[in-house]
Amino acid sequence: MNELELVEKLRKMAGGGRSRGVIRGIGDDCALFRPKPAEDLLLKTDQLIEAVHFPKTMRPEIVGQRALGRALSDIAAAGADPRCCLVALALPKSRADQWILAFFRGLLALAKRTGTVLAGGDISHAGAIHCSVMVVGVVARGKALTRAGARPGDQLCVSGRLGKRWDQGIEPRLALGRKLAGKATACIDLSDGLSLDLYRLCKASRVAARVDRVPIARGATLDRALHGGEDYELLFTLPARFKPLTGTMRIGTIVPGPAGTVWFEGKILPPRGYDHFK
Amino acid sequence: MNELELVEKLRKMAGGGRSRGVIRGIGDDCALFRPKPAEDLLLKTDQLIEAVHFPKTMRPEIVGQRALGRALSDIAAAGADPRCCLVALALPKSRADQWILAFFRGLLALAKRTGTVLAGGDISHAGAIHCSVMVVGVVARGKALTRAGARPGDQLCVSGRLGKRWDQGIEPRLALGRKLAGKATACIDLSDGLSLDLYRLCKASRVAARVDRVPIARGATLDRALHGGEDYELLFTLPARFKPLTGTMRIGTIVPGPAGTVWFEGKILPPRGYDHFK
Repeated sequence: MNELELVEKLRKMAGGGRSRGVIRGIGDDCALFRPKPAEDLLLKTDQLIEAVHFPKTMRPEIVGQRALGRALSDIAAAGADPRCCLVALALPKSRADQWILAFFRGLLALAKRTGTVLAGGDISHAGAIHCSVMVVGVVARGKALTRAGARPGDQLCVSGRLGKRWDQGIEPRLALGRKLAGKATACIDLSDGLSLDLYRLCKASRVAARVDRVPIARGATLDRALHGGEDYELLFTLPARFKPLTGTMRIGTIVPGPAGTVWFEGKILPPRGYDHFK
Repeated sequence: MNELELVEKLRKMAGGGRSRGVIRGIGDDCALFRPKPAEDLLLKTDQLIEAVHFPKTMRPEIVGQRALGRALSDIAAAGADPRCCLVALALPKSRADQWILAFFRGLLALAKRTGTVLAGGDISHAGAIHCSVMVVGVVARGKALTRAGARPGDQLCVSGRLGKRWDQGIEPRLALGRKLAGKATACIDLSDGLSLDLYRLCKASRVAARVDRVPIARGATLDRALHGGEDYELLFTLPARFKPLTGTMRIGTIVPGPAGTVWFEGKILPPRGYDHFK
């Protein structure tokens, strides 16, 4: 396929690429999105690189699913509803059209299930596979969740067990995120490990935290659950007056103390999670 | 620098990363953008890859400038006003912090001059330099220019001479684009060569075109001006009742005929411009 044929094929796979506020989608120079009054927009970009974020042997459907899933996880953490995405994909000439189509099959399956319209993007050649996904989400004005509102006394909760292996697809916690908007005082998605992401939440909120228990995924170790990353669960704080939400677990309490300090088993837990840039 | 230090440095270089509707910028998981009532949003993503779109020896300031400039050129072609951008950058560990900072100096100089807030992004390691820029632009509702509105009898115009060498920065034609919104019947930016981009405009508008003259840049050949690409001038169509706009040149006329056909010097001009995917 040449570029025009490929774009036309993807436009059909994406169901035309319009709806959910997308007035012009795939095939135009720019996508055109029409927000509703009193909506705030959340913008997120994330990249997935062969041999850095995934092994060369990973199935293209899973690569596509994860490329979108990672960005959607951040949209979930903001309490927002995804509307559309743009995908920039670069790959070696040795990868056949079949790889590209399988990548988009995986991406579009998640996109359709979450109401995310594939509105445009760009495809190019490169030495290794490289994918950037940009997602636009919406939330009622002023209701977006941030890392920065946790207060001493708040319950510290997570949406699932930690330390999972990351050879599978990502299930962004969008339904939970929407429930948390207007309820949670702070929220972050666990992409770089509990220890580092909790440090970030506490630092931004200028509070400390005490972790009482860590729910460990089947087959994982405590070390992996604390520092492993790639969980894509939500970590959030709820005022004490709220009951726990179904399907979530309380793991500790926000406490006064030096900003960013996390206590676990009587010691300070160092933020040992993944630093992408080290 | 580690990731946190780098992000903080970039946040300062970007002037805090708020304004122009950006409520939350660099340093949060998502950027938060608040559109005004009756605004349509234009979304564009473009990628710039070492050894594909630029040589390894290109100065990082120019790489950064071009990475943003390419996407802004599409925003200009839609008649829109850029508001913010997200930048996903991947690069080898051998590139020092100085390369990254110089890249962003180049990008931010153009961003500030055009009112584009650097609102977020992602930095990672990779085997070769890879940059994706996503830009959000705004335009009055329903006023965005497209490729698709040209009609027989319209004047065919360009914003500058063609066939320029592409070792320098890009000057996106934003001021002209804004003037054209509500006036031009169709518009596209010349990134892949006059012959291919004019073919696309005609195909989308279901018309043909006759080219009478091609303004050739100093030192360029006619062949390069017709098929070379990387001009980043605007190609647009104006109803016959309008006078030519200052700084633009009329190069031909939209005519009835098979969609996409371009006549030049009595022959059909084949769409020989760059196909990124061939």
